Amino acid sequence: MLRGIGDDAAVVRAYERCVTSVDAMVDGVHFRLAQGWATPAQIGGRSLAGALSDLAAMGAEAGEAYLVLGLPPGFTEEQALDLVRGAAALARSTGTTIAGGDVVAAPVLMVAVTAVGWARPGQRLVGRDGAQPGDLVGVSGRLGGAGAGLAVLEGRAPRSARVEPALARVLAPQPRLAEGRALAGAGASALIDISDGLGVDAGHIGRASGVRLEIDLGALPLEAGVCEVAAELGLQAPELAAASGEEYELCVCLPPASRAAAELALSAAGGVGITWIGRATAASAAQPAGVTLTLDGRELAPGGFEHRW
Amino acid sequence: MLRGIGDDAAVVRAYERCVTSVDAMVDGVHFRLAQGWATPAQIGGRSLAGALSDLAAMGAEAGEAYLVLGLPPGFTEEQALDLVRGAAALARSTGTTIAGGDVVAAPVLMVAVTAVGWARPGQRLVGRDGAQPGDLVGVSGRLGGAGAGLAVLEGRAPRSARVEPALARVLAPQPRLAEGRALAGAGASALIDISDGLGVDAGHIGRASGVRLEIDLGALPLEAGVCEVAAELGLQAPELAAASGEEYELCVCLPPASRAAAELALSAAGGVGITWIGRATAASAAQPAGVTLTLDGRELAPGGFEHRW
Repeated sequence: MLRGIGDDAAVVRAYERCVTSVDAMVDGVHFRLAQGWATPAQIGGRSLAGALSDLAAMGAEAGEAYLVLGLPPGFTEEQALDLVRGAAALARSTGTTIAGGDVVAAPVLMVAVTAVGWARPGQRLVGRDGAQPGDLVGVSGRLGGAGAGLAVLEGRAPRSARVEPALARVLAPQPRLAEGRALAGAGASALIDISDGLGVDAGHIGRASGVRLEIDLGALPLEAGVCEVAAELGLQAPELAAASGEEYELCVCLPPASRAAAELALSAAGGVGITWIGRATAASAAQPAGVTLTLDGRELAPGGFEHRW
Repeated sequence: MLRGIGDDAAVVRAYERCVTSVDAMVDGVHFRLAQGWATPAQIGGRSLAGALSDLAAMGAEAGEAYLVLGLPPGFTEEQALDLVRGAAALARSTGTTIAGGDVVAAPVLMVAVTAVGWARPGQRLVGRDGAQPGDLVGVSGRLGGAGAGLAVLEGRAPRSARVEPALARVLAPQPRLAEGRALAGAGASALIDISDGLGVDAGHIGRASGVRLEIDLGALPLEAGVCEVAAELGLQAPELAAASGEEYELCVCLPPASRAAAELALSAAGGVGITWIGRATAASAAQPAGVTLTLDGRELAPGGFEHRW
């Protein structure tokens, strides 16, 4: 950082291309401060994670983050510092510099994060629109934890040691930055982060690319505790996992010839693994661009849900 | 723009250094939607102007802007589009690209803008901390309009044709981007935009630079209508002008040898002019780093006021 907090604007050394994402969260809409589900530090971390996840979904390197805090009456200075500390901890672990921001009075707590990432010369960035018929479809890590954790927070399923990993997915989500860079470098044709649910986000890739993603939900990697919570909710676990938003895992399309390179790159990056869950096929009048989700030979609607605490 | 709205993040070609500022405005704090003082379009323009003004104060080129809109119940789609159109109009006139953003539900209207600017190789960026004893102190444009306009909006002074230019300073502020680049290129040693009032902001330069700015308020260039409003308020016009926030004019320090170059560069840039209003002097135990404001031989406190509609 060439100039930071204390001048009119932050100045940083740029790399070739600048990748920017903005993500805002508002109390009562995206979280519920009064119900004490999340600490201010968790709210800070989660807000930054949402913006960084969009950089991961391009294959960019994280650079700087800028935080806008709208602080309501009664929100103490200590709580505000906790919130910033939560964001700072995730910033440290992801190599992100918190380079500036703005603090304003507001009727309710709100956090808006601008995350700026970079791509160096030769570094591939990957959008949603490059998937080709024949590509493999994969997802990073394990799914369903955020949806299951939310159900527990809302009291729709009981809390137990089994569901703690799922709760962690809601309260302390991790952007898959290293995984995104590895997949982009290994030849990914399309990449998106799962913020609206796998079904919805895979549909975004399909429509942007003009292909149909055929996904076998039986192959989904499930977070610990998802089966138990799904049973409580009367859902099949893969159904819950495919509809669960704010997972912040990546959904990727990749030519089959690049599969080994992608797995090797992910392994070298030391992040979470990848599971291959389907194929991209040519769109047709009968099967237009989008997504088909199948479970035990039955087709499901790709409806997801965004987290609304 | 290499990738824009519709993917996970925006991608733009970078120049050497990246200059970023974030500015948030909240209904009831920074403006009062219910009182109808400003249209949604004016609120959009004003929010962008605040963030761009910080780039002007570094001497950067405007690049991209990212808008976060928190929309309350009852704020119509047409109003939201008006707000964006107001920002887009200022973006166009300043060469800024609105490259992305986020729209969320919120209990009251809030707008957060991240403005990203650029500096090319060899381009000077100027902070607050470079003023030297002997430097001239100047301000761009004319001051006091925002403070006078606010007093009229609040009903503390009568509205008349005379005060329309002052009202325009509140409702449609213009960031001084071309002027900032011209002054930086001509050798400015310190630069700040007047958001808290000239007295306060000149004090920021003085303390950051370790010098004392001695400013003759009698030399201040006054916006039309400021004298009339000041008389209504029982103030002297330069007093009102020195305390008026969100002026978005620039305060600059510059070696006397660069004065002609600065005036020439400003003239070539086709923007507002500059008025020389004082000198930087060495700080001492008796006169510590900061600012001295003098009017008719009398010293005034540098207190400013931020606009709080």
